[in-house]
Amino acid sequence: MEPLELHIIGCGSANPTQRHRPACQVLSTRGKLFMIDCGEGTQVRFAKQGLSMKRVGHIFISHAHGDHCLGLPGLICTMSLLGRTAQLHIHGPQELEAFLQSAIGLFCPNLEFEVLFHAVDTKKHQIIYEDKSIEVWSLPLYHRVPCCGYLFREKPSLPHIRRDMIDMYEIPVSQINNIKAGMDWTLPDGTVVPNENLVTPPTPSRSFAYCSDTTPLPSLVPMIKDVDLLFHEATFDQENEFRAKQTYHSTTLEAAEIAKEAHVGQLCIGHYSSRMRDEEKMLLEACSIFPNTILADEGKTVIITPTTR
Amino acid sequence: MEPLELHIIGCGSANPTQRHRPACQVLSTRGKLFMIDCGEGTQVRFAKQGLSMKRVGHIFISHAHGDHCLGLPGLICTMSLLGRTAQLHIHGPQELEAFLQSAIGLFCPNLEFEVLFHAVDTKKHQIIYEDKSIEVWSLPLYHRVPCCGYLFREKPSLPHIRRDMIDMYEIPVSQINNIKAGMDWTLPDGTVVPNENLVTPPTPSRSFAYCSDTTPLPSLVPMIKDVDLLFHEATFDQENEFRAKQTYHSTTLEAAEIAKEAHVGQLCIGHYSSRMRDEEKMLLEACSIFPNTILADEGKTVIITPTTR
Repeated sequence: MEPLELHIIGCGSANPTQRHRPACQVLSTRGKLFMIDCGEGTQVRFAKQGLSMKRVGHIFISHAHGDHCLGLPGLICTMSLLGRTAQLHIHGPQELEAFLQSAIGLFCPNLEFEVLFHAVDTKKHQIIYEDKSIEVWSLPLYHRVPCCGYLFREKPSLPHIRRDMIDMYEIPVSQINNIKAGMDWTLPDGTVVPNENLVTPPTPSRSFAYCSDTTPLPSLVPMIKDVDLLFHEATFDQENEFRAKQTYHSTTLEAAEIAKEAHVGQLCIGHYSSRMRDEEKMLLEACSIFPNTILADEGKTVIITPTTR
Repeated sequence: MEPLELHIIGCGSANPTQRHRPACQVLSTRGKLFMIDCGEGTQVRFAKQGLSMKRVGHIFISHAHGDHCLGLPGLICTMSLLGRTAQLHIHGPQELEAFLQSAIGLFCPNLEFEVLFHAVDTKKHQIIYEDKSIEVWSLPLYHRVPCCGYLFREKPSLPHIRRDMIDMYEIPVSQINNIKAGMDWTLPDGTVVPNENLVTPPTPSRSFAYCSDTTPLPSLVPMIKDVDLLFHEATFDQENEFRAKQTYHSTTLEAAEIAKEAHVGQLCIGHYSSRMRDEEKMLLEACSIFPNTILADEGKTVIITPTTR
């Protein structure tokens, strides 16, 4: 099974600290890198993690706050310096487009690749991108400005052919796709070999939801039901619940509650406020409600595995 | 004597590496910090060096290339988060203003402090800022886009009063400023005490010139004559002279030649291309023409002292 990995590039919040940097995550699957948010300094930390810019075709921005997108102009300039010719797709709230155009016009007016901006309706839960192996859905969030999360869901794959059976029954190659699609096989003597004898079950699809920044939203629960990994912001610990409310952010307990309700496989929390000094305490708080919680940290890679239920 | 210090925040060039970051330097004098260029990631590295954003009142941008100014929006947002109310002055080529406005409008529309943009005529050598202790001059450079350097020159200070003499001759406080201004003192018996017996020489003024990015420009020499510290870009070593020409940059030898011609006290080179791996070789090259050369490096602080000639 091809690994599906989440690389944490930055998991701080608006006021960057020496410990945590502005938001960026990268989902790696089948040779493609999907970037999610792109705070200032992303390009350097991205390279530090051994990732290649050439493999980034799509960038998904949650909202037009600086700590989620100020790394874009520099990233695009560097892609240009490195001789990129492939299109770059940027998905995000409409507000972002004029800024991007202004930055590109000034800093890299002679780009040799197209930057295509796709406005995302942050109020709708809908497919905004798909290719043959993955779908990306928008997840409406509620923050001080239009904001959405993103749900990455692998498409169901076909069952695996049992090579030994194919050989034994001398099934021609031309029939393999039919077998994968569920067809039984009839032997020359009329015996029917049922399809389940010819295949093994498909690789389970995996899914990842990215939810940052938002007040806790029960309406999210059905949209992210059963995802294997949920990143949910927890800007504050429970002690700072009031501050979280004030700034349209979530606390550890609120993030964990969403994870529990949505019955996700694993929860990763981050987007730590610069006021938070004790992440272990935050982890304990979240684990008290949803035990399979981990802390985001710069340089961390989370392998997303299908949840056994 | 109040120290005059140059802090190197970033000394890489357009393509950032793990070793060097985009351009930024900070000149520290009498409690004030003058920032010069502000590449992506400046705010974090600035804080890492223990510098305080509150002390930054003026930022001088050499040109509108991303590696010299993409740190501005994030820096301004963070200043806002930290509750700044004092005006912030940004000096730089006119091209920069629309981008800054677009970024501020989108990312920090409710700033509680004014950001005042002052367009600098990059073709003129003139005073663009002064206060009671320092003058800042623009230095026309020649790059792919309008570009200028900046010369910081302390104003000449007055001689120091010799307290012992003032007491001995019972000179009233009301006369101190006249004495500082050069007046002799006449005793009741008509004896004239010459001014030089009443004062010690003024603290020598110090100066710093920042020249980045540029093709080597002999026309700079008279403008930066005798400065105590010259930062001159040396993006390439001598082997890459052709590449330097192509990109309107300078080599080690070219930077050192300017330093020698201008008879500066010390030369600091930097703005290293990501292609340069051997900075010691670059240093040796520069020293072969101008021995008092040092290498810029992130985190380095250079104390600027008056040159003994």
